[in-house]
Amino acid sequence: MIADQKLLRIPGPSPIPPSIQQAMSKPMIGHRGQETKELLQRIKPKLKPVFGTEQDVLIIAGSGTSGLEAAVVNTVKPGDDVFVIVTGAFGDRFVKICEAYEIKVHRLDVDWGKAASPEVIKDYLNEHPEIKVVFTTYCETSTGVLNPVQKIAKTVHQHSEALVVVDGVSCIGAVEAKMDEWGIDVLVTGSQKAMMLPPGLTFIAASDRAWKVIEENEQARFYLDLRKYRDNLVKDSTPFTPGVSLLFGLEQVFHLMEEEGLQQVSKRHKLMMNMTRAAFRKLNIPLLTSDEAASPTVTAISPADFQAEQLRKVVNTEFGLSIAGGQQHLKGQIFRIGHMGYCSPADVLQIISTIEIGLKKINKCIELGQGTQAAQEIYLLQEDE
Amino acid sequence: MIADQKLLRIPGPSPIPPSIQQAMSKPMIGHRGQETKELLQRIKPKLKPVFGTEQDVLIIAGSGTSGLEAAVVNTVKPGDDVFVIVTGAFGDRFVKICEAYEIKVHRLDVDWGKAASPEVIKDYLNEHPEIKVVFTTYCETSTGVLNPVQKIAKTVHQHSEALVVVDGVSCIGAVEAKMDEWGIDVLVTGSQKAMMLPPGLTFIAASDRAWKVIEENEQARFYLDLRKYRDNLVKDSTPFTPGVSLLFGLEQVFHLMEEEGLQQVSKRHKLMMNMTRAAFRKLNIPLLTSDEAASPTVTAISPADFQAEQLRKVVNTEFGLSIAGGQQHLKGQIFRIGHMGYCSPADVLQIISTIEIGLKKINKCIELGQGTQAAQEIYLLQEDE
Repeated sequence: MIADQKLLRIPGPSPIPPSIQQAMSKPMIGHRGQETKELLQRIKPKLKPVFGTEQDVLIIAGSGTSGLEAAVVNTVKPGDDVFVIVTGAFGDRFVKICEAYEIKVHRLDVDWGKAASPEVIKDYLNEHPEIKVVFTTYCETSTGVLNPVQKIAKTVHQHSEALVVVDGVSCIGAVEAKMDEWGIDVLVTGSQKAMMLPPGLTFIAASDRAWKVIEENEQARFYLDLRKYRDNLVKDSTPFTPGVSLLFGLEQVFHLMEEEGLQQVSKRHKLMMNMTRAAFRKLNIPLLTSDEAASPTVTAISPADFQAEQLRKVVNTEFGLSIAGGQQHLKGQIFRIGHMGYCSPADVLQIISTIEIGLKKINKCIELGQGTQAAQEIYLLQEDE
Repeated sequence: MIADQKLLRIPGPSPIPPSIQQAMSKPMIGHRGQETKELLQRIKPKLKPVFGTEQDVLIIAGSGTSGLEAAVVNTVKPGDDVFVIVTGAFGDRFVKICEAYEIKVHRLDVDWGKAASPEVIKDYLNEHPEIKVVFTTYCETSTGVLNPVQKIAKTVHQHSEALVVVDGVSCIGAVEAKMDEWGIDVLVTGSQKAMMLPPGLTFIAASDRAWKVIEENEQARFYLDLRKYRDNLVKDSTPFTPGVSLLFGLEQVFHLMEEEGLQQVSKRHKLMMNMTRAAFRKLNIPLLTSDEAASPTVTAISPADFQAEQLRKVVNTEFGLSIAGGQQHLKGQIFRIGHMGYCSPADVLQIISTIEIGLKKINKCIELGQGTQAAQEIYLLQEDE
């Protein structure tokens, strides 16, 4: 294998498009100068349609978790009651953050691989009017579930005064998001997944309702104080040193997204999801999630009669293909394919056809080419729509 | 489609591995300084095994054609008799260069898609002892034929005093080459094919016999005077400004080749050839060349019942996949897939599976996935060897 040949198909970080890599290689500039001001001025309006909001989307230098923590420390304080919908490892992360701040967590555990049900949420909220914030995950990276955040937000607002905070780290930029219309109060994402950048930025926006809470929240915070980011962004600035190279790259992200069209981007991701799912279904290898709960950005496969880890190892050795394993109690039980950001239907065909070889190499009985064929058929079908 | 997503699978230029791209981005250095001297010193021995020679391999800033012209102007002069074996467009290029210099060309035309036969060459040379040089092509890019240069060189030396000049532009670096052992007198290649670099360098080596001729040849030449390159390379220098960035890249080419192993590189190319051929055979789409005549770097396909140009267009539109058309009288008759340099078996699976979709889209009756399956089978078979 050529040493350079790496097929990075984990659910983030995702591969970086060459034009973004190139944009990030521009010579460094001072972050308090006119150039950075103008760069932020140009970027600012472009983030809004990706979030589906008229609010300013704040940019923090930090990983996705810093964005999740920002959502917590800006909306609640020790002793407050929150409801966390845990559909996987990243719902669980919200719990851990809240617990670190001695926030009173009401936790709804949903079987990993299933989506949260708005009905269950409704019942809980009706019984617990003390809940101040509901935390949920749009795409649960650890299972490939896309939670129905639109319905969840609607349910929450119908039955409670709580804010709705959504972790959109592994899908925003690849799926439809209408933060304002859906009533999402805080939406967070990261740079390294569907946004096609290296890790290092987190993006966060808040509704007017949320801003009232944020303004008055007594929780101590400094770096993650969203008020600082908001007040600075109005002046095309940041409170602390921004990730300058990543901002160079971010501007190119928007060029690519605009060239393709945001709608087409989300259509492409759905197509890649459908191709991947059809392939494993044809190969008779169980998918972890139902079609209704499936995310367009990551697919988890739950093999019944072979070792996921063995497959991961062999495709990596043979083809440099990186796919992810399971997290926590699903470790060793599933494997996960990231098909997000800089990934095309042609790449999905490559993933499937190489995994088919991997399956043969670990002596799983399949007919070669069948999964690929199923994915090809979906491609042609969707094209005809 | 993401604007960045281009699958460049023409028979050169080929895609550039990221680490080579990065190496070429080093800050420029003066070409008469110590750094360039040391760079050439490190590169010099690494080119020899790629050519299979103990001679110094000279590096000229220019495209492959400049290397072919160097081979001509250094070995013959106006009025000299040469024998040019034309198996395609690049054999023809030797003819054109020779004619520009009023060299007397004896031309052997071989049907495009077939390899040259040493028998025929033998007969011609026996009848024409005045031939001073035999020009031939190792891989004929326009047809995907790999001529039997080892046998040709042997035949020439058995039946004549002529030098054997070989154009190895589209295969050296990907196929076995034993210039010294096989009796090749001049071997030329370019940077932009199996050598994984952008166009801009040509590499050329000459045997002791050839150097005697070169020394005494009265043909006027300046930039392409190989004596200048030879005399300078001894001092780790070049007679004229070298392609400095490409030399940065070239050093990384050798790192990649050494990491993979030269033998494995050539094994990988044979595997990719076999996968590609098996796929089209399974799809019942005729290959232009026989298995015996096939090149490991480029495969020409000669469709009987669909338009090659239509297929090329549709795979480009759908997947950003660039495959080449035919040249000269084969224009519109064939399409050509480059599988060389920075290309892996996983890439071949991607090429095949996307072309299958392309075939469906132009209403060619095939069963999806069958070509991919055939390629997968070859992969598993060769692995077992």
